[in-house]
Amino acid sequence: MNQPNPHQAIYNIAALCAAHGLTEVVLSPGSRCAPLTLAFSRHPQTNVRVVPDERAAAFIGLGIAQARRVPTVLVCTSGTAGLNYAPAVAEAFYQQVPLLILTADRPPEWIDQLDGQTIRQNGLYGPHVKCSYTFPTDTTHPDAKWHANRLMNEAINLAKAYPPGPVHVNIPLREPLYPTGEVEFEEVRVIRDSIEPLSTVWWEEMGEKEPLYELLENALVVVGQQQSASLSPILQDFATATKATIISDTIGNASDIASSITHQDIFLSSTNTEFLESLRPRLLITFGKSIISKALKQYLRKYPPAQHWHLQEHSGPTADVFGTLTHIFRVGVADCLRYLEGMPSSSRKSKVSIPTRPPSPLGQAWQTADQKAKSFLTNWFESFPQSNWTEFQALSSVLVGSGSSLAEKSLHLANSMAVRYANILGIPAGVEVCANRGTSGIDGCTSTAVGYALAEPEKQVVLLTGDVAFFYDRNAFWHNYPTPNLRVVLLNNHGGGIFRIIDGPRQQPELDEFFETRQQLTAENLCRDFHLPYFPVDSMAKLEAALPVFFGPEGAGGVLEIQTDSKVNAAFFEQYRAAVKQAFS
Amino acid sequence: MNQPNPHQAIYNIAALCAAHGLTEVVLSPGSRCAPLTLAFSRHPQTNVRVVPDERAAAFIGLGIAQARRVPTVLVCTSGTAGLNYAPAVAEAFYQQVPLLILTADRPPEWIDQLDGQTIRQNGLYGPHVKCSYTFPTDTTHPDAKWHANRLMNEAINLAKAYPPGPVHVNIPLREPLYPTGEVEFEEVRVIRDSIEPLSTVWWEEMGEKEPLYELLENALVVVGQQQSASLSPILQDFATATKATIISDTIGNASDIASSITHQDIFLSSTNTEFLESLRPRLLITFGKSIISKALKQYLRKYPPAQHWHLQEHSGPTADVFGTLTHIFRVGVADCLRYLEGMPSSSRKSKVSIPTRPPSPLGQAWQTADQKAKSFLTNWFESFPQSNWTEFQALSSVLVGSGSSLAEKSLHLANSMAVRYANILGIPAGVEVCANRGTSGIDGCTSTAVGYALAEPEKQVVLLTGDVAFFYDRNAFWHNYPTPNLRVVLLNNHGGGIFRIIDGPRQQPELDEFFETRQQLTAENLCRDFHLPYFPVDSMAKLEAALPVFFGPEGAGGVLEIQTDSKVNAAFFEQYRAAVKQAFS
Repeated sequence: MNQPNPHQAIYNIAALCAAHGLTEVVLSPGSRCAPLTLAFSRHPQTNVRVVPDERAAAFIGLGIAQARRVPTVLVCTSGTAGLNYAPAVAEAFYQQVPLLILTADRPPEWIDQLDGQTIRQNGLYGPHVKCSYTFPTDTTHPDAKWHANRLMNEAINLAKAYPPGPVHVNIPLREPLYPTGEVEFEEVRVIRDSIEPLSTVWWEEMGEKEPLYELLENALVVVGQQQSASLSPILQDFATATKATIISDTIGNASDIASSITHQDIFLSSTNTEFLESLRPRLLITFGKSIISKALKQYLRKYPPAQHWHLQEHSGPTADVFGTLTHIFRVGVADCLRYLEGMPSSSRKSKVSIPTRPPSPLGQAWQTADQKAKSFLTNWFESFPQSNWTEFQALSSVLVGSGSSLAEKSLHLANSMAVRYANILGIPAGVEVCANRGTSGIDGCTSTAVGYALAEPEKQVVLLTGDVAFFYDRNAFWHNYPTPNLRVVLLNNHGGGIFRIIDGPRQQPELDEFFETRQQLTAENLCRDFHLPYFPVDSMAKLEAALPVFFGPEGAGGVLEIQTDSKVNAAFFEQYRAAVKQAFS
Repeated sequence: MNQPNPHQAIYNIAALCAAHGLTEVVLSPGSRCAPLTLAFSRHPQTNVRVVPDERAAAFIGLGIAQARRVPTVLVCTSGTAGLNYAPAVAEAFYQQVPLLILTADRPPEWIDQLDGQTIRQNGLYGPHVKCSYTFPTDTTHPDAKWHANRLMNEAINLAKAYPPGPVHVNIPLREPLYPTGEVEFEEVRVIRDSIEPLSTVWWEEMGEKEPLYELLENALVVVGQQQSASLSPILQDFATATKATIISDTIGNASDIASSITHQDIFLSSTNTEFLESLRPRLLITFGKSIISKALKQYLRKYPPAQHWHLQEHSGPTADVFGTLTHIFRVGVADCLRYLEGMPSSSRKSKVSIPTRPPSPLGQAWQTADQKAKSFLTNWFESFPQSNWTEFQALSSVLVGSGSSLAEKSLHLANSMAVRYANILGIPAGVEVCANRGTSGIDGCTSTAVGYALAEPEKQVVLLTGDVAFFYDRNAFWHNYPTPNLRVVLLNNHGGGIFRIIDGPRQQPELDEFFETRQQLTAENLCRDFHLPYFPVDSMAKLEAALPVFFGPEGAGGVLEIQTDSKVNAAFFEQYRAAVKQAFS
């Protein structure tokens, strides 16, 4: 096969259904659904029955699913065919019977063009399905292929998930619909969504090639955003017992774990493939929400582990952020970690304890890299005289200089540069970190910190923010509730400095006006309006003098405004990147 | 009938369908739809056919509509019955065949409660209907009865409107479903939506009792929000030729019409029923968007005209703001007015000109009331010494004091007090008025004026605003585009003063903290931040001194901040209301 088959992702649907145990198919023939018809009829593990009236076909599929307790696959052509499924779909929804409904469709450009058998099929069953997906139209791009696989895995898992029910996938298909050669099935990634209790031997099915303790020694645990560090003792025990490596992302609130990796954003920017390969895990375990470290995301996408388990207590979709997901476990994270920790052998039946082992090679590789990155950062700042003032250094000074007292603080990182700087510099161990990374907007970072400060008047709340986020949300202070426990560290470089640093905008002639968007405000008048103590600094000396006052009682509710220059920052950042490249080449 | 029948509004559906010419009904029997079954089967003008399979029933209805070119009414029971209509509905949508689909439903409290034949029926046909309506569940409240009538008129008109197609009304029905007495049909309001060209004799059908010129003499024309005064010459001619009375709402941009009524908000607050009855029109003609005058809205709701024609060039829904709508004409306003003006007799065939007539009694009544209101306002302000400073007087001074030059200005009225004050005081004739009355938010009034000022650098743009709207939207100035042509008149009473004036909140103990919401800002620091000239005034003398400078070149892009006290304003307003009441008793 020289040309990739444009319907390969369609054929793979049959393979994926079979791998998930969905072998019963009811087909109502048509032309548009031909690629699906061929895939399911030619796949060796699927059993296709043909029923011409779709209303009857769907109810027959319902009966099969009632009997088998596995989703029946319904396949029909485009147009009103799928509407005839609707009564059975509604019945299945309320009876909680699983169906996977695959409706072939015209491609989107042909909708409403007065061509035959073409209606608006997306979301065809309204609220009577658990979800309605739209399959990508063109699956030749690798990202679209990933999308197709992930989407079908999600649809199948959702149909099975408790309570079971109908799930719809609308599948646009372009002509030609019939293949010139053979229909072949590729090896497909199967994402298993565990609906069984943790105590069943689920990993025996998947980790059978090696004992569990070996798998865990070669595991990375990446902690996404968590609201608190309450899991830290359990993670600490888990790491000690299993020798798994813990990666603490800036917003993961796990930096207090003694051996956790925190400088991944630095060393994973390396281009040395041998070094990077030495860091590749066999198993990736994730939980929590988003992560900040872009280098880590890129690394795991390029060096995927053999297995990726995501622990997620709640139902609903699971993000496949690295494109590596293989198992979803709907369990409490603490329970799961304790359980794995107590099961060192490959079988839960043989609870023999494993003798003391040396540190794992994988763990050592990550620890060495992390230490090297820490030293690099220290040396890098030392190599610059204090006079070389940048917001990067200033922020480091704020974070490190007030480190010990930060333990009783809540640190709020605004989007978008403040949180990225903190990601590079690292957060002092044990400080609670909050950031609006649900949608990563700049719109409410100050207001969120104000709300937190109002709710926790005994805590010192520190907000690190840039000028765009800060002035955007200045009405955070426009109310009658004082926040004497809030300290705002404002890095004011008078514009969206991030655009001067990230690739893309920084190379454009429109950078100044249309990306960075210079703005001239300082916080002086704002502080006057809202009666906030104001600490403007424009040099390291002034900053160092201001810090003890600002973080002391005199700074009550104040704003420490660090004036910097975005061009100096950008140049500094450039040098920093070059130095990183050299250090980890 | 002692108790009102809870299904009376359902029975009226049949009457309304018949009045609109929808006589062909296809019914698939069921229990939930019993009230509809009884209504259609017992109405003398409707012809009901029974088809048990809803899939077939809907296609049969489609065939009838193909033949008759009038919407067929489909009636079915709750549950999957309606889903079986879906294939025919999609076919009708694309074939542009009109259907009125009435699906009986359980009441909302019974959805998803595991009761029989209950699915999620709202929006059942997704994008394959022109619109899907939900009929009110309980129609005993007068507003709900109005809603039911308006909604069914809209649904029927929409099904017929070009291009015709299916329209869905989901009708929740509570038990008991069967009446204890007779099914009676009330007289129902029919809203006719003209789809015919203007040149047909449409008014002969409805105004036949009197000649058109008599109808027009007794007509009120209410001009809703318009973006420009370009219609004024046509309206002026129309008023002169027909003796119709023009009401110019604050945001109607029609105050330059010589004889237009502008002080309706004052005299319509009267409680003298004889006086109010003398103002009642036989015909109401409306066009444009929303109106500000609350007194006018309340008046027309209480004293409805016999006919209400709304002129609307575009397709889509028409608001029934006074509950009086009887005809929608899809025509250009200018064309329609010129056409009516040129057709003084009741028939377009007899174009004899009507001899010069005296002013109409209705027109005289409105003119007299308007003059009286004008005099009242002048006397009222004169009766207060200048020292009695309120934002009401100050604003009057700004509006009147700079009247002549305002002709070349664009006046932007912020929500919510600024626009209401202007409504009472009246706008100097000829000034262009803009206001965000699409949704009446305070959120972007300043930004909108800034945008206007940027786009029209040669015009002086005046923004009248209160402090809450102004500080809410202070980032309107946070960009790099100067607006030297913008003058902001800020009425700062340090809170949402409107709540101190309107009934409801002003009587609550929570008024101060939870409604009015005191805020302490002045515009001083904001003007500093954005380099705007700042004119603070706190007395009439200072205001009068500031006005020529502020509106002159020195005021370039400035803010005139009028400091007032919301309690003084509220007291003044109270006195004003008492005086109005007395003047028009």
